[in-house]
Amino acid sequence: MTESIPRPGRPSSRLADQLRDVRITRHYTKYAEGSVLVEFGDTKVLCTASVSERVPEFLRDRGQGWLTAEYGMLPRATHTRSDREAARGKQTGRTQEIQRLIGRALRAVFDLEALGPRTLNLDCDVLQADGGTRTASITGAFVAAHDAVSKLLATGRIESSPITDYVAAISVGIYEGQPVLDLDYAEDSRCDTDMNVVMTGAGGLVEVQGTAEGAPFSRNEMNALLDLAQSGIRDLIGKQKAALEIAHG
Amino acid sequence: MTESIPRPGRPSSRLADQLRDVRITRHYTKYAEGSVLVEFGDTKVLCTASVSERVPEFLRDRGQGWLTAEYGMLPRATHTRSDREAARGKQTGRTQEIQRLIGRALRAVFDLEALGPRTLNLDCDVLQADGGTRTASITGAFVAAHDAVSKLLATGRIESSPITDYVAAISVGIYEGQPVLDLDYAEDSRCDTDMNVVMTGAGGLVEVQGTAEGAPFSRNEMNALLDLAQSGIRDLIGKQKAALEIAHG
Amino acid sequence: MTESIPRPGRPSSRLADQLRDVRITRHYTKYAEGSVLVEFGDTKVLCTASVSERVPEFLRDRGQGWLTAEYGMLPRATHTRSDREAARGKQTGRTQEIQRLIGRALRAVFDLEALGPRTLNLDCDVLQADGGTRTASITGAFVAAHDAVSKLLATGRIESSPITDYVAAISVGIYEGQPVLDLDYAEDSRCDTDMNVVMTGAGGLVEVQGTAEGAPFSRNEMNALLDLAQSGIRDLIGKQKAALEIAHG
Amino acid sequence: MTESIPRPGRPSSRLADQLRDVRITRHYTKYAEGSVLVEFGDTKVLCTASVSERVPEFLRDRGQGWLTAEYGMLPRATHTRSDREAARGKQTGRTQEIQRLIGRALRAVFDLEALGPRTLNLDCDVLQADGGTRTASITGAFVAAHDAVSKLLATGRIESSPITDYVAAISVGIYEGQPVLDLDYAEDSRCDTDMNVVMTGAGGLVEVQGTAEGAPFSRNEMNALLDLAQSGIRDLIGKQKAALEIAHG
Amino acid sequence: MTESIPRPGRPSSRLADQLRDVRITRHYTKYAEGSVLVEFGDTKVLCTASVSERVPEFLRDRGQGWLTAEYGMLPRATHTRSDREAARGKQTGRTQEIQRLIGRALRAVFDLEALGPRTLNLDCDVLQADGGTRTASITGAFVAAHDAVSKLLATGRIESSPITDYVAAISVGIYEGQPVLDLDYAEDSRCDTDMNVVMTGAGGLVEVQGTAEGAPFSRNEMNALLDLAQSGIRDLIGKQKAALEIAHG
Amino acid sequence: MTESIPRPGRPSSRLADQLRDVRITRHYTKYAEGSVLVEFGDTKVLCTASVSERVPEFLRDRGQGWLTAEYGMLPRATHTRSDREAARGKQTGRTQEIQRLIGRALRAVFDLEALGPRTLNLDCDVLQADGGTRTASITGAFVAAHDAVSKLLATGRIESSPITDYVAAISVGIYEGQPVLDLDYAEDSRCDTDMNVVMTGAGGLVEVQGTAEGAPFSRNEMNALLDLAQSGIRDLIGKQKAALEIAHG
Repeated sequence: MTESIPRPGRPSSRLADQLRDVRITRHYTKYAEGSVLVEFGDTKVLCTASVSERVPEFLRDRGQGWLTAEYGMLPRATHTRSDREAARGKQTGRTQEIQRLIGRALRAVFDLEALGPRTLNLDCDVLQADGGTRTASITGAFVAAHDAVSKLLATGRIESSPITDYVAAISVGIYEGQPVLDLDYAEDSRCDTDMNVVMTGAGGLVEVQGTAEGAPFSRNEMNALLDLAQSGIRDLIGKQKAALEIAHG
Repeated sequence: MTESIPRPGRPSSRLADQLRDVRITRHYTKYAEGSVLVEFGDTKVLCTASVSERVPEFLRDRGQGWLTAEYGMLPRATHTRSDREAARGKQTGRTQEIQRLIGRALRAVFDLEALGPRTLNLDCDVLQADGGTRTASITGAFVAAHDAVSKLLATGRIESSPITDYVAAISVGIYEGQPVLDLDYAEDSRCDTDMNVVMTGAGGLVEVQGTAEGAPFSRNEMNALLDLAQSGIRDLIGKQKAALEIAHG
Repeated sequence: MTESIPRPGRPSSRLADQLRDVRITRHYTKYAEGSVLVEFGDTKVLCTASVSERVPEFLRDRGQGWLTAEYGMLPRATHTRSDREAARGKQTGRTQEIQRLIGRALRAVFDLEALGPRTLNLDCDVLQADGGTRTASITGAFVAAHDAVSKLLATGRIESSPITDYVAAISVGIYEGQPVLDLDYAEDSRCDTDMNVVMTGAGGLVEVQGTAEGAPFSRNEMNALLDLAQSGIRDLIGKQKAALEIAHG
Repeated sequence: MTESIPRPGRPSSRLADQLRDVRITRHYTKYAEGSVLVEFGDTKVLCTASVSERVPEFLRDRGQGWLTAEYGMLPRATHTRSDREAARGKQTGRTQEIQRLIGRALRAVFDLEALGPRTLNLDCDVLQADGGTRTASITGAFVAAHDAVSKLLATGRIESSPITDYVAAISVGIYEGQPVLDLDYAEDSRCDTDMNVVMTGAGGLVEVQGTAEGAPFSRNEMNALLDLAQSGIRDLIGKQKAALEIAHG
Repeated sequence: MTESIPRPGRPSSRLADQLRDVRITRHYTKYAEGSVLVEFGDTKVLCTASVSERVPEFLRDRGQGWLTAEYGMLPRATHTRSDREAARGKQTGRTQEIQRLIGRALRAVFDLEALGPRTLNLDCDVLQADGGTRTASITGAFVAAHDAVSKLLATGRIESSPITDYVAAISVGIYEGQPVLDLDYAEDSRCDTDMNVVMTGAGGLVEVQGTAEGAPFSRNEMNALLDLAQSGIRDLIGKQKAALEIAHG
Repeated sequence: MTESIPRPGRPSSRLADQLRDVRITRHYTKYAEGSVLVEFGDTKVLCTASVSERVPEFLRDRGQGWLTAEYGMLPRATHTRSDREAARGKQTGRTQEIQRLIGRALRAVFDLEALGPRTLNLDCDVLQADGGTRTASITGAFVAAHDAVSKLLATGRIESSPITDYVAAISVGIYEGQPVLDLDYAEDSRCDTDMNVVMTGAGGLVEVQGTAEGAPFSRNEMNALLDLAQSGIRDLIGKQKAALEIAHG
C-alpha cells in the first residue's frame, strides 16, 4: 500500500489498495486433515481439507490423484436468510460456479501424480458473508490443503509434496470510477466492474474473471485492476506463509 | 453432581452425572436476529434465528406465527467426511428427524399467536460433532430464539414475549451397565441405550426419545436415565439464563 | 382390562386401557415371503416381508445380514387426500422417521449374524389410517418377518431362527387429563401427550418416544402411560402368538 | 364365452375367451368418496376417487372440472420386490404411461363442464399384480368415480351426472398362435402380441394399444384380438352395472 | 395416393391419404455413428445413433446387446416456449412415453444377439414440431441405426447385420369425420381420433396406438385408419430405402 | 488478419489470428421470435429468442423486463455421447456456468426498463460441438434477440429498442507457446491457457474469463490474448451487422 493512491471514499474507509484485516486460523476444527478459518474482514469461511484413499471413477487405474472442492453458505450467513440448498434439493448455479473455480485454482498448484491415488476434498463453508467469499475460500483452502499434505508427508504416505507453489485470490473492482482492492459487500453491490483474480506465489495468473456489472470496462481499467490484484495477492501469500510457519502446539 | 455417583470409567473420565464443558456464545455472527455458538465439549453448533414477516401457506390468514428449524452438518464436522447433502440433492432421514425434533421442542415454549403473523427460522449447523448435536442444537437454538424475540420487542414489532418458558435438552445413556449423562461420540457409539430428553424450565417433559441400541432397557434403567437427564437439563437452563443475562455491548 | 380404570369419555367409548379390535391376517397377498394385514380398529396396514440374497454395500463381506423397513400411505388412506410421495419425488420427514423406527424395532429382536448374508425388507403400506399406523406396522411387520424366517428355515437356507424375541408396539396418550391406550385418530388429534412404546416379549423396552403436543408432561404421567403401554403390548404379543399358531392351509 | 372356441392350452386352463374371476367390491376403505377393490383373478387393485373443490392452474376460471389418475404398485405386489418409487424419488416411465392411460380412459366418459370447477383424483394402487393391472385399474376406477359422483349428486353439489357412459378395459394377446382374452402374468410374459383395449358401454373404442412383443402381428390377428376384447369388455361392463346396483348399507 | 380419395378440406390442403413432404438427410452431424435429420413437412427431428461397447446392468454377461432411445424437444420447437426438461429436473410423462415407444419400435427389427455385447443409443431431438414428432423420430431413427450398423460391419466389429427388416411409423386420425394421413399440428389439435401406427417392411404391425380425443371410434373407422397408415408407411419405407441407397461422399 | 502474424502450426492450419468460417443463419426455425443457427466452423448452435409477457417473481411490479438464457448440448453433439441432462435430472455445473455467462453478456447491452414488463428467453442448443460453443452462443443469441426486438417494435409492443449496442464473444488461447484466436476442440484440448472474451460494438469489455489449464500465464500473454480477442470480436460484430441487414423474405 503506497501513499500515492488517494482514498476513493470507499464505504469501508479503506485506501484503494488496502486489504481488509485478514486472519488465517489453522486447526480450527479437530477432525479434518486441514482445517482453516479464513477471515477477510467480516467474511468468514471455514475451509477443511479431507484426504480419502480413493479416486473418482474417471481416474481409476491412472496412478494419479484428484483434488476437488465444494462450497456452501450457511442459510443465515447473509443479510437475509437464503434457502438451505440441502432442503431445496439442489445447489444453485452460483454455488457450482464458485466450487468449480476453487477446485481449478488449487489444482493449478498441485502435481496430481505426486499426490498418488487419493483424493483431497476441500470444503469451503461460509459462516458469514461480507463480499469476497470465493477469494477467501481459495486463500484459506490452500492453507488447509497444505496442512493435509503435511500430514501425508509426516505419516509417510507420500514422499515429496505435490504442492508446486502458493496460490491465493482477491477481488478488485471499479467503485465510483476508481479501481479498488478487496471489495466488501457494500462496495461489491455498487461496483461497476467486478474482477476475481487467482495468482501463484511466482506471480503467474491462474484465473482472471472480470465482469461488467454496469458499463463495460476498458483495457486501461482492466490493467489498473490487475495491478491492484497482483499487489494484494502478494500480501495474501505473505500471510499464508506466516500462518504456515506457526507450529501446531 | 453428587459424590454418591461412582465413576463408571467413562472414556471421557467424567463422572456419571457430569456435563461436558458447556459454552454459549451469543452474537456469534452478525446478521441473524439471534446467533449463538453452543459448545458441549467438542460438539460445536452454530444456531441462528431469523425473523421473516411471512407465514407458511397452511397458516395464511390465521393471525398466528410459525417457528421451524433446519439442521445440517458441515461435511467434515465428523471423523470421516460425509457427503454434502446439498450436493447429493436430499437431506437424510436422520437430518429430517433431528430438525423436526428441534422445531417441536422450541414450539413447546412458544405462544405462536403472541408471535403474530411472522416466522422464526432456526438454523442449527454443526461445525464439529462429538455426540449430542441435537441436544446442543435445542439448547442453543433457544438462546438464539430468545435474542430474536428481544429484537422484536425492542423494535416494537410485538408487545409481549411469545416465549412461555425455557427449554433445553440432553442425552443420557447406559454405558457399561451404568447410566451416564451427556454422551460424547466415544460413549455414544458404545452405549446400550441412548435417550434424548427435552425439558422446560418448569421441569415439564417435552420429548423423551429412548432407543435400545443393543439389549432392551428396563423401567428401572429408564427412571435412572430420566433422573440424570432432568438434573442435567436444570444445569443447562442455568447456563442459558447466565448467557442471556450478559448485555450485548 | 380391569374394572378399576374409569371410562374417560373417549371418543371411541373404549375403556382407558382398552385396545381397539386387533386382527392379524397372515398370507394376505401371495408373493411375499411374509404378508400380513394388521388391523387396529379402522387402521389397516399391509406388511410384507421380502427376502433377498444380497446385503447393502456397507455390510459387504461381513457375513451378517440386514433388516430394513419402508413405510408408505396410500394417498387416500386418510380423511383428505395427500399427495402421492412417488409423484412429489420425495418421502416426507414423517415417513422417513416412521420407517427408521420400524427398522430399529425389528432389528432389536433379530440376530443379524444368524440371518446370514441376506436382507429382509419389510414394507408397511397403510391402506386406511385411523391413528396408530406406526405401532400397527411394527406389530404386523413382526408377524410377516416371522413367516419369512419360517420359509428360510423350511427351505434349509438357515438352520436356526435369527429371531430372539417377540416385539410389538402401541401408542398411549393423555386425553382430557387421563392416560389412555391405543389412540385412534379422533383421540390422537386432541391429545395433550402422545407416546409410542415398543417392547419385547420379555418385557424389555426397545423404544419410548413421548411428545408433548400441548402442555409438557410430568414423570408421574409418563409412568402411568408406560404402565398402560406395557399392558397393551403384552396383549398384542398374545395376539401375535395366536396368529402364528394357525397353520397355513 | 362360447363352446366353439377351443382351449389353447393356456397356463390358466381358461378358454380363449374366458375372463378371470372378476370381483368388484365397493366401499372398500372408508374415507374416499369412492373406494373399490377390483380383482381380475389374482390381480388386486384398490381404486379410490377423491373429490377436491379446486382445479389445476391451466383450467383456472374456465368453469370446468378435471379428472386425473395416479397409479402405483406396492413394492411386493410382484414376484420379486421392486424398488419403492417414493424412495427412488421418481415414478418410472411405465407408471407414468399407465396413469396417463387411466386418466384419458375415464375422461372419455366424463363431461368435465358438468362436473363443475372441481377435480376428481383417481388413485389406483396395485396390492397384488398378476397381469392386467392397467385394465383392472380402469374398470375399477370407473366404479369408484361413479360412487364419488353419486355423493356429489346426493349432496346437491352437482345437479346432473357428468358421466356420459360406462367404460372398462381388458387385455388380449396372441398366446402360442391363438388370440386369448385377459392375460394373466404367466400368459403375458410369454405372449407374442399384447393389446390393451378400452371401450365404452355403447361399444365405442376409446383406446387401442397393441404391441408386438416378439413377431409383428397382422391385420387378421388384430381383428381377432379386437373381437375378443369387445366381447370381454361387454362382460366387464355388465359386472360394473351389477356392482353399482347393490345399495350401500 | 389415389385419385379416389376426396379432399377433406384439411387445413394443410393435402389429400386425405397424402403424406407431407418427407426429407431424410443422412450425415447431418459429424460425430455420431448415424446422424439423420428427418423432416415430415415442418416437423424436423435430429436422430443420432451412438454405439457404445457396454450393455446395461440387467444384460451383463448375457452375450446380447441393447438398443434404447431418448427423446427431447428443444424449448422453442413449439408455438410457445416450453420449460427445458433439464432445468425442471425431470422428463414429462409424454417424453417418457414417446421414448419408450421409439425404443420398442426399433427393437422389433433388431436381433439383439447379433448386435453383440454393445448398446445402440438413439437420440431423437425435435428442432421444430408441427405434429407427428414421434412417427418422424421412429422413421428417422431407423435410418440412423442403419448407418451405425453399417459402420460396425465396415470396421469388422460385427459380421452380419442385426437388422431384420425396415420399420417406420405414421399418424392417422379422423378429421371432420374423415380419416386422414400424417396429421400436422393444426389437424392433430382438432382431430377426434388420433392413431400412431408402426409397421415393418414386410407389412407386420409393431405398434398400434389409437386414442379417442373426443368421441369414441368404431371398428370401421379404425379399419379405415389402419388402411391409410399401412399405405403411408409403405411410402415412408420407400423413402428410407432411397435415402440409404445414396453413397456417403 | 495481418500478414505479420506467423502460422503457429495450428491443428486447423489457420493463422494465429484467423477466425473459423462464421455463418449466421436467421429464421432457422419458424416459431421463435428470433431463431438463428450460428456456426463457428464445425460448432453449430441453434439460438432462439422467445418473448413472454411475464417477468420473474423478483421483478414483479418493478416496471422493468428481464432477459435470461439457457444452454444445452444434444447428447451426441460431441465425440462421445454424453448423458442427456433431462434424463439425469439435473444440469451440470458447466451448463449452468455457461448459461449464466450468456445471460450476463446479453443483459450488458439491454436496457431492461425499455424492454418493459416482459421476459426474453434465449435458448442456445448445441447441435454440434467443436470448441467455442459458449462464444458462438453469445454471438448468435445477440442476433436472435435483435430479431425478437424487431418484432416487438413492428407490432408496437415497444416504441424504442432496448438494445444499446452489439455484443459478441470469442475464445483465445496459448497454443504451443503462441496466442491464437478462436480455438477449435483439437486446439482447446491441448491449450495451456484458455480465455473467453465478451465485448460490445463500442469496444467495451463485458466479460474476460481467463483460465490457466496448464502453466499459469503472464500479464504479457494476457495482453496478447486480449489484443487477438478484440480484433476477432470486431470481425464477429461485422458479421452480425451483415446478417441483420438481410431482409427477411
